[in-house]
Amino acid sequence: MCRWMAWHGQPILIEELLYKTKHGLIDQSLHSQLGAETTNGDGNGVGWYGSGEGPGIYRSISPGWADANLRHLAAHVETPLFLAHVRASSGTAVQQSNCHPFSHGRWLFVHNGLINEFHAVRRELMLALDAQSVGEIEGSADSEVLFHLALGFGLEDDPFAALELAVGFVEQTLRGNGIAPAVQASIGVSDGELLWAVRYSSEGRSRTLFRSEDAETIKHLHADDERVARLRDSDRIVVSEPFSDLPGDWHEIPEATALTIAPGGHWETRSFVPQAPDA
Amino acid sequence: MCRWMAWHGQPILIEELLYKTKHGLIDQSLHSQLGAETTNGDGNGVGWYGSGEGPGIYRSISPGWADANLRHLAAHVETPLFLAHVRASSGTAVQQSNCHPFSHGRWLFVHNGLINEFHAVRRELMLALDAQSVGEIEGSADSEVLFHLALGFGLEDDPFAALELAVGFVEQTLRGNGIAPAVQASIGVSDGELLWAVRYSSEGRSRTLFRSEDAETIKHLHADDERVARLRDSDRIVVSEPFSDLPGDWHEIPEATALTIAPGGHWETRSFVPQAPDA
Amino acid sequence: MCRWMAWHGQPILIEELLYKTKHGLIDQSLHSQLGAETTNGDGNGVGWYGSGEGPGIYRSISPGWADANLRHLAAHVETPLFLAHVRASSGTAVQQSNCHPFSHGRWLFVHNGLINEFHAVRRELMLALDAQSVGEIEGSADSEVLFHLALGFGLEDDPFAALELAVGFVEQTLRGNGIAPAVQASIGVSDGELLWAVRYSSEGRSRTLFRSEDAETIKHLHADDERVARLRDSDRIVVSEPFSDLPGDWHEIPEATALTIAPGGHWETRSFVPQAPDA
Amino acid sequence: MCRWMAWHGQPILIEELLYKTKHGLIDQSLHSQLGAETTNGDGNGVGWYGSGEGPGIYRSISPGWADANLRHLAAHVETPLFLAHVRASSGTAVQQSNCHPFSHGRWLFVHNGLINEFHAVRRELMLALDAQSVGEIEGSADSEVLFHLALGFGLEDDPFAALELAVGFVEQTLRGNGIAPAVQASIGVSDGELLWAVRYSSEGRSRTLFRSEDAETIKHLHADDERVARLRDSDRIVVSEPFSDLPGDWHEIPEATALTIAPGGHWETRSFVPQAPDA
Repeated sequence: MCRWMAWHGQPILIEELLYKTKHGLIDQSLHSQLGAETTNGDGNGVGWYGSGEGPGIYRSISPGWADANLRHLAAHVETPLFLAHVRASSGTAVQQSNCHPFSHGRWLFVHNGLINEFHAVRRELMLALDAQSVGEIEGSADSEVLFHLALGFGLEDDPFAALELAVGFVEQTLRGNGIAPAVQASIGVSDGELLWAVRYSSEGRSRTLFRSEDAETIKHLHADDERVARLRDSDRIVVSEPFSDLPGDWHEIPEATALTIAPGGHWETRSFVPQAPDA
Repeated sequence: MCRWMAWHGQPILIEELLYKTKHGLIDQSLHSQLGAETTNGDGNGVGWYGSGEGPGIYRSISPGWADANLRHLAAHVETPLFLAHVRASSGTAVQQSNCHPFSHGRWLFVHNGLINEFHAVRRELMLALDAQSVGEIEGSADSEVLFHLALGFGLEDDPFAALELAVGFVEQTLRGNGIAPAVQASIGVSDGELLWAVRYSSEGRSRTLFRSEDAETIKHLHADDERVARLRDSDRIVVSEPFSDLPGDWHEIPEATALTIAPGGHWETRSFVPQAPDA
Repeated sequence: MCRWMAWHGQPILIEELLYKTKHGLIDQSLHSQLGAETTNGDGNGVGWYGSGEGPGIYRSISPGWADANLRHLAAHVETPLFLAHVRASSGTAVQQSNCHPFSHGRWLFVHNGLINEFHAVRRELMLALDAQSVGEIEGSADSEVLFHLALGFGLEDDPFAALELAVGFVEQTLRGNGIAPAVQASIGVSDGELLWAVRYSSEGRSRTLFRSEDAETIKHLHADDERVARLRDSDRIVVSEPFSDLPGDWHEIPEATALTIAPGGHWETRSFVPQAPDA
Repeated sequence: MCRWMAWHGQPILIEELLYKTKHGLIDQSLHSQLGAETTNGDGNGVGWYGSGEGPGIYRSISPGWADANLRHLAAHVETPLFLAHVRASSGTAVQQSNCHPFSHGRWLFVHNGLINEFHAVRRELMLALDAQSVGEIEGSADSEVLFHLALGFGLEDDPFAALELAVGFVEQTLRGNGIAPAVQASIGVSDGELLWAVRYSSEGRSRTLFRSEDAETIKHLHADDERVARLRDSDRIVVSEPFSDLPGDWHEIPEATALTIAPGGHWETRSFVPQAPDA
């Protein structure tokens, strides 16, 4: 059911966090400890901001642990803001177009979770999309539809409000079809400036999500660590599950909570309350 | 814009027609002579009937000419009825779920052609599908939507009537959106017993399609050929473009014509006239 | 470090053993219980005997659990003798040419294990191969070199003697290079008639290997099982780890032991004692 | 038989030359005009220098024209020096490890050409490599062996001398095996500072190779072109075949000639005369 992470801070080689960290995302692709499955081997992806227009995106059906291209890319792309994802399919095909991050213009979207009995409601959910969104959809994943629903509800103007409407609409649709309205939604979104993250599930048993401690505190705890010494106060990490080489340095995002990280590392949380569009 | 072929006859190793024939389908993947493009390198696929329930299916994003698995499969699967396809994308992603044949239950479907400005009307076309069909769609190709439209219009009961409605509906939808109602539809369909083929295009400039001459005539023309000597009267081949080692042995299917091949090799043609469902 | 299985018996759809068995090979690709790793997601492969010349082979870098082509193939290929493999790389690239089974003429070869510090001795091992063998090698796996060593030592005439020489030569070469002479070699070989299996490791701590109980005994234990009822006395299964729906029906192959299964289900074991060619 | 290109100059997005140029390398993957084949669809690759240690490398078995990851990468990686390659296999497997560029430490290597009857002499050529080189070889391509031969003959100290020895050794080995000593070698090499290119073939009928005209001259010819206006005097391009949107701006590298391009755009040519190591 996937693991993801995001970096917002000083420019950094992606490999620092994907490969050079103990129990980083690539290790989690093979040995997740907090996920719904231990193996997240149904593809991987990374989106980053830097040179060129909009985000760079790499997506592959290779398991993250075995992807030579991902390893090379991570070792040679430096970026102040990226989202990375390893996938465990909840039933849909293992294909590049089902890998995260999904993108639209400057926007990136990663998702750990699922829509309950998605196949039964896919048609009704897609009806709520406009022709352009349906034309853009390349894969069959629930996550891609959820992203386009949020775009339709105004993600580019107000990400959290749009995600609350999108999730609320999905729950309403499930209910209307006699299906338990279960959405699991650990979500990361960025436009290249800000980073938005959500931890939510209809049943209140959400996938885990953590933000890193302030650099000052981390440095205090790990005074001798050379890599930690390079951290700046504005650096922020969001992860599905903590790296093991920074014990004590993670704050769990509470249930039904949304987190914003802005340039400079400023962050704030608010509650996340899905609501059906016409409620 | 793809090439395809079908075999209906005695059990045969697939490689006989894919690899061992001069200018067979695999050669056409690299050097098509009559297609819209010379290269059909955006994936391949084969569906066959034999052991097991329903058709066996192999689909891959590898170009046909370079696919070691296809070569092996073709050399070791013997079947009385198969459809094979090499793809040239008309813009949609190169992914396994966009490769032909598409399938539903016992039914296989291959398509050489396209729906004009498909992205603009994809939503409206998918609205005409029921929830199960939309839930089954895994890719983003126009061909997959066309197949599911035909299923919705009764392909399993009357293939040609359903395809006429499906193509007519697409043309009507294009027209309704101010788009030239151009559909290119060289199509092959089978349920494991019969083989249906269609050659049609809205503009009357259809992709080519041929059926093989009767075995008796072929044997007369190629009296010394060992492989030809094995042909039976009931063997039938349908191809986008002729093999070059059987010159003079092919009949072009006329424009706007549908061909049925039944067990025993009995065949007949009829005209193919799309019509909008509610016309 | 891989899992494999082999079937020698009545013609059967491959899926019966790969997918329809509890804790069959595909489940072991994700949740191995007795392997060196729980995840065997670095590719899969199957080789079978039936129609066409020599064995049919399918190899893919997709994890076994996620491979739609493998699932289809398994559901539509019927064969009296096949070998299947799911790979966990011990360091070499995840590529089709490193996937098992390896083949030469009518011969198939699968391997669960490794050659200690293979990279350091690869050159010296390849020196022992003739020009044709080196020309045939497509990948970088230790298993492929081990197979070609055995071919060079006469695999096609006396499989066990050749494998004893091959393993002995590898151990000698490691020793000569100051490397602990550690070979792990759970091996399956077939020519389409017989099936040979080896369980060996230099340290005497070999990967597990099991053969199925006689059909009569299995039927006695599972009198009500419809699938078991179809078993014939001549049916034999060899597995890296047992299926869980046939408890009590497996015999562990002892350390340093070789097993032959002949048509009719006749089997015998002998000890497996590697020896250096010139010792 | 492959096409390649190299850029040495100001930092540039890779897509400028791969996608935004008329008849650039990606177009050549589908419609080569001067190559041995029109289609170069057996994989692609790009190596670049910039962030991180040594070169970044991306290699894929996708045809260049259909590779979404390559398109994204090219649009978001900016580099002053890169080599790109589209492959047409001369018989070896289509796998990532056979795609160019090959690398060792800081060094990149691309090759358009082949070694005549490579399979017959692969063993003898690999004998000339040391254990580390053989341990590094991951694929089965003649190009990879040629690269490692050159490394063994001192590529890192004197690239042209090493390549002359490597090619000379291959010709000698072919001759010694009674095979026509035919090597086709259009080669590009870089260490991140300089770019070396070779045009050579044993028969004197080499694959084409061109260098771009000086920026001043190009600007004179294309005064109104916005992209040309950005060219600097130090910018250099080397290509297998010219882009069509810069007619008149290309100098063919003569037969048996080696070209060096240094920082600042300084270039010089010399003759390329293979010689057997012990001659």
